[in-house]
Amino acid sequence: MRIDGERMRQDFEALAMIGATPEGGVSRPSLGEAHLAARAWFLERAEAYGLETRIDAAGNHSAVLPVDGPTLLLGSHLDSVENGGRYDGALGVVAALHVLLALRETQLPLALEAIDFTDEEGTLVGLLGSEALTGALRAEALRAPRGGRTALLEGLERAGLHEERLVDARRAPATLAGYLELHIEQGPRLERAGAHIGIVTAIVGSRSLVFDFHGLSGHAGTTPMNVRRDAGLAAAAFVVATNALVVRDFPGCVATVGDMRFEPGGFNVIPGAARVSLEFRSTEPTQLDELEAALRREARAAAERHALGVEGVVVGRWKPAALHPGVREAIASAAASLDLTAIELPSGAGHDAQALAAVTPTGMIFVPSAGGISHQPSERTSWEDCLNGANTLLHATLELCRLYAVRGA
Amino acid sequence: MRIDGERMRQDFEALAMIGATPEGGVSRPSLGEAHLAARAWFLERAEAYGLETRIDAAGNHSAVLPVDGPTLLLGSHLDSVENGGRYDGALGVVAALHVLLALRETQLPLALEAIDFTDEEGTLVGLLGSEALTGALRAEALRAPRGGRTALLEGLERAGLHEERLVDARRAPATLAGYLELHIEQGPRLERAGAHIGIVTAIVGSRSLVFDFHGLSGHAGTTPMNVRRDAGLAAAAFVVATNALVVRDFPGCVATVGDMRFEPGGFNVIPGAARVSLEFRSTEPTQLDELEAALRREARAAAERHALGVEGVVVGRWKPAALHPGVREAIASAAASLDLTAIELPSGAGHDAQALAAVTPTGMIFVPSAGGISHQPSERTSWEDCLNGANTLLHATLELCRLYAVRGA
Repeated sequence: MRIDGERMRQDFEALAMIGATPEGGVSRPSLGEAHLAARAWFLERAEAYGLETRIDAAGNHSAVLPVDGPTLLLGSHLDSVENGGRYDGALGVVAALHVLLALRETQLPLALEAIDFTDEEGTLVGLLGSEALTGALRAEALRAPRGGRTALLEGLERAGLHEERLVDARRAPATLAGYLELHIEQGPRLERAGAHIGIVTAIVGSRSLVFDFHGLSGHAGTTPMNVRRDAGLAAAAFVVATNALVVRDFPGCVATVGDMRFEPGGFNVIPGAARVSLEFRSTEPTQLDELEAALRREARAAAERHALGVEGVVVGRWKPAALHPGVREAIASAAASLDLTAIELPSGAGHDAQALAAVTPTGMIFVPSAGGISHQPSERTSWEDCLNGANTLLHATLELCRLYAVRGA
Repeated sequence: MRIDGERMRQDFEALAMIGATPEGGVSRPSLGEAHLAARAWFLERAEAYGLETRIDAAGNHSAVLPVDGPTLLLGSHLDSVENGGRYDGALGVVAALHVLLALRETQLPLALEAIDFTDEEGTLVGLLGSEALTGALRAEALRAPRGGRTALLEGLERAGLHEERLVDARRAPATLAGYLELHIEQGPRLERAGAHIGIVTAIVGSRSLVFDFHGLSGHAGTTPMNVRRDAGLAAAAFVVATNALVVRDFPGCVATVGDMRFEPGGFNVIPGAARVSLEFRSTEPTQLDELEAALRREARAAAERHALGVEGVVVGRWKPAALHPGVREAIASAAASLDLTAIELPSGAGHDAQALAAVTPTGMIFVPSAGGISHQPSERTSWEDCLNGANTLLHATLELCRLYAVRGA
């Protein structure tokens, strides 16, 4: 049994035109117009194929093959980072849809649901839809979201969603049979190993923090260098120190300053305030705590050197997740049945699977990313690899159904 | 003879309401709505007082006491930095208007003109109106202005000005008898010396540059630290290096990074591009050249360490100016006649006087800035000091008229 590759390709390419950028990527920030258009397209395609569809209280969009039994979820997300690539998330959603199409005539013991989760990337909150579904969504995350409270409220309104109802998307774990996600690797390991398929062992945890440095604005010509309380300078020193700290003391981790803003931001005014947007990742929960503490020390040291105040606020917090051994075996068996080479590897990127792993047996299938590049327009996975991933998703689904029938029914 | 202090105070306070900010300052970026409203207010006040008014091709606004003779210009500017203070520029314009009012019944050998110069602060170009008047405005400055080409064109359109006609504002030096500008010091020296009046000896030159670092964007989770080409990190290192360089090797200079922008600017994307907006100042032309060269070396070094490209573009360039000894003497004599203590000092800030000094005898009168603070809402000069400055401007005007009558007529 195989996915209809040509039909899937047409769908994938049509989707890549929604929010397309001149450089060949897509820009579909969460709950923006392009993202909502992509979600509408997904439901339209599912309905055109004659599938049932649903949208839950967190805005997760699904196509369903219903049976009287628990649901095996297959999915990913259709939002992207600003000016991102066309494969990240989108491949997993389109492949899930085409697994349902391939299996629509097959009698299965599990309901299948191809799901597009809301706000995976964290333009607004991060893992919003998957955490709402698993019951992990915290009110705190909504009060001070990574993308700012205003952007969140505007996005929810555009999507017709209600903040207080998001948690209604929660599903009882007993209704779920598992979760499978196909995704591009976004790193170079599969390509370097010459492997077709990656079987994800664990997903890194990450934290996002905003550091605000408060100094004293002033005239850039008349304020002597030695009396300045330059918030921009302290923030820049903190960025340099962050990098040195992680490289030196946290070799398994990554830390990134993705954005900085100076206030008031003129040529001839000493910055009185500076904001640093930072995130870091590790597969070890204790290392996340240690790194956060070390970064807070560095921020205070940089602030003190320039007689400034500083505060750091956590605006995103996702735990590391180990993926389910039985589901990993099912993926390995699926790849082997298709004569595809597979290796196990951890994920350095966060995924909806991270939220699902807390409540239901969860596995992830990676396919190679050319040059390991992602989150930019040049992100690319060969179509052969995309299709290999979709077929592995199909056969892992069949394997989980077989195991369920043997053990569960 | 004295300025009518109460009438001047009413005008000054009315002006401070235009573009007023909640913190007590003003925000009147050049050719924005609030700035245009302030300029319209100035002409209306002059007309209400029965003075002649004019607007030239560069948008400079003037009130005039005409006679058949060359013109002594008195002025400053009504634009402010974003979220700036109410004294910077505005004091000099209002005082100039009130000098004309004080002298309207006096027979003088020189025409007097109270002038509000366009775009002193450099939100758009910097010294735009005064350089147009003196013939120093370069087409290059308009093609790549500090505030961006779009903002310039939008501002000109809002003001009803035409780029190609700006240079028509030039006046033949023979038509000018001199220029006097009253301004707040924007530094702490007068306050520390306990002096009423500062007589400016020279004005610093300055340069503004934009440095663009070009790296490689990528996923913040999956890209190992050691293969990153993080433009934000290199830019931050350059900011730190800039400060160290100036403090160590250029003790008479100041350098400021007023703004930084990262692209694309998300939490989870390595910045592929970073822009640093920088300016530096010196009273020595050769030091400006040396510092620019040293900064370019630092930028290249920071870029090379992270395998990036970098380019630095000059977006503003103002020469240092020595002020006229005869005009300085006239100011000293005016202050003495009012029993005000005066000291000589250089200006660390740029001023329209810098442009005027190239073509006509020019002097500047400073009054104390509380705490040396400027370019922010807490900028403050006591009203007594403001009035002392206005009366010094009045008597320096009389002294220059006396000298002209003796020597020139």
